[in-house]
Amino acid sequence: MLSFLRSIKERDPAARHNLQIILFYPGVKAIFWYRIAHFLYVKLKLKLMGEFIMFIVRMIHGIEIHPAAKIGKRLFIDHGSGVVIGETTIIGNDCTIYQGATLGGTGKERCKRHPTLGNNVMVGAGARILGNITIGDNVKVGANAVVLDNVEAGKTVVGIKGRTL
Amino acid sequence: MLSFLRSIKERDPAARHNLQIILFYPGVKAIFWYRIAHFLYVKLKLKLMGEFIMFIVRMIHGIEIHPAAKIGKRLFIDHGSGVVIGETTIIGNDCTIYQGATLGGTGKERCKRHPTLGNNVMVGAGARILGNITIGDNVKVGANAVVLDNVEAGKTVVGIKGRTL
Amino acid sequence: MLSFLRSIKERDPAARHNLQIILFYPGVKAIFWYRIAHFLYVKLKLKLMGEFIMFIVRMIHGIEIHPAAKIGKRLFIDHGSGVVIGETTIIGNDCTIYQGATLGGTGKERCKRHPTLGNNVMVGAGARILGNITIGDNVKVGANAVVLDNVEAGKTVVGIKGRTL
Repeated sequence: MLSFLRSIKERDPAARHNLQIILFYPGVKAIFWYRIAHFLYVKLKLKLMGEFIMFIVRMIHGIEIHPAAKIGKRLFIDHGSGVVIGETTIIGNDCTIYQGATLGGTGKERCKRHPTLGNNVMVGAGARILGNITIGDNVKVGANAVVLDNVEAGKTVVGIKGRTL
Repeated sequence: MLSFLRSIKERDPAARHNLQIILFYPGVKAIFWYRIAHFLYVKLKLKLMGEFIMFIVRMIHGIEIHPAAKIGKRLFIDHGSGVVIGETTIIGNDCTIYQGATLGGTGKERCKRHPTLGNNVMVGAGARILGNITIGDNVKVGANAVVLDNVEAGKTVVGIKGRTL
Repeated sequence: MLSFLRSIKERDPAARHNLQIILFYPGVKAIFWYRIAHFLYVKLKLKLMGEFIMFIVRMIHGIEIHPAAKIGKRLFIDHGSGVVIGETTIIGNDCTIYQGATLGGTGKERCKRHPTLGNNVMVGAGARILGNITIGDNVKVGANAVVLDNVEAGKTVVGIKGRTL
């Protein structure tokens, strides 16, 4: 827990101290409840109970995580409003996800239909990573980028910059 | 109602059974309340009442639908957080809209200033369909795509994919 | 206050009268509470109190404004769900910001790491303006545009339109 708080202070310059992070970071609260909902859904097969918890979290914090998603250590969802993480998503350790990002499906696949993220992946605001694709370690995905194919470890994927008229 | 629930199960692989859909799908709740608000606003001219209901729905579920919008049968708003549907929007039957999508205006038009969607249109996450334009039947609009012109029936409009550096 | 309400009626064709704007416009409520939170945070150094107010506003209205941001007169946040305004952002007078827009950081800068907007700037739905850059007076930023560099006064920056297949 302390290593998680320390890692947030390294990742967010607006983080002032542990109390503030615990009280006011929606992404920290959403992950806390996801851990409980995931345990209920996957280990105890209390699916409706896990879904209920994440429904309430989405209502309060605007962050939607399917309780069956597999999420590694120290995931930091910053701001987080509008984030959607689908049922068959797998996320490694030390990833950072910003507001409005989607780890979702294309609607064409069944079974494993959401992305797999390695460790230390950064997903920018409004980025859409869709389908059963693999995003390697240390990849950075820029704001509003649409990603539909595998990305090799260490690469950066940028959204297209606006054009000045 | 049953045909609506069945159509959701066809469209969303994460949908397990009717009870789960009725309890935990924000888009289903938003549409339910929109039907009531639309009746109050348009038929009974209780405009403030209709607006109040949709204000509460937006607060709880993060989905904003103007009570005067005209929406056909079996619209499925999946995930739905951040969706905005403007006052003069017209939506056909069997459409699907994902989180973060906007059916909005460009700020340059008055009166009919929002889009008209045909039947069976799919609007991807974060897509922005703006202005008094017509989107034909069976059109698919990809994630984060910006659409400012009419689209013929059956076409697919894709957002620009991120570029790997 | 009256000039603010009048300016909203000019900017939003769906605005019918003052009562409706005061009751049901989440962006108007968010700005009202931001003024109080900003005073507590900056003048009285009650930082946790200011952060608490804006945490509640984000929970209720889905609009996230850091209490330390500097915001000019008559800012209108329309719809507003998913909007994020970072700690060191500076916004001039008469700006309009739509749902899903981010005035944020790139993660590479410390201290002043968010944008500075001039007067009468329009930021479209889902636009991401990132980093310590300056957006001149009267600039219009289109929906879903990604802006990482300074923009001269009077210019328009458009996001890339979707491609029809």
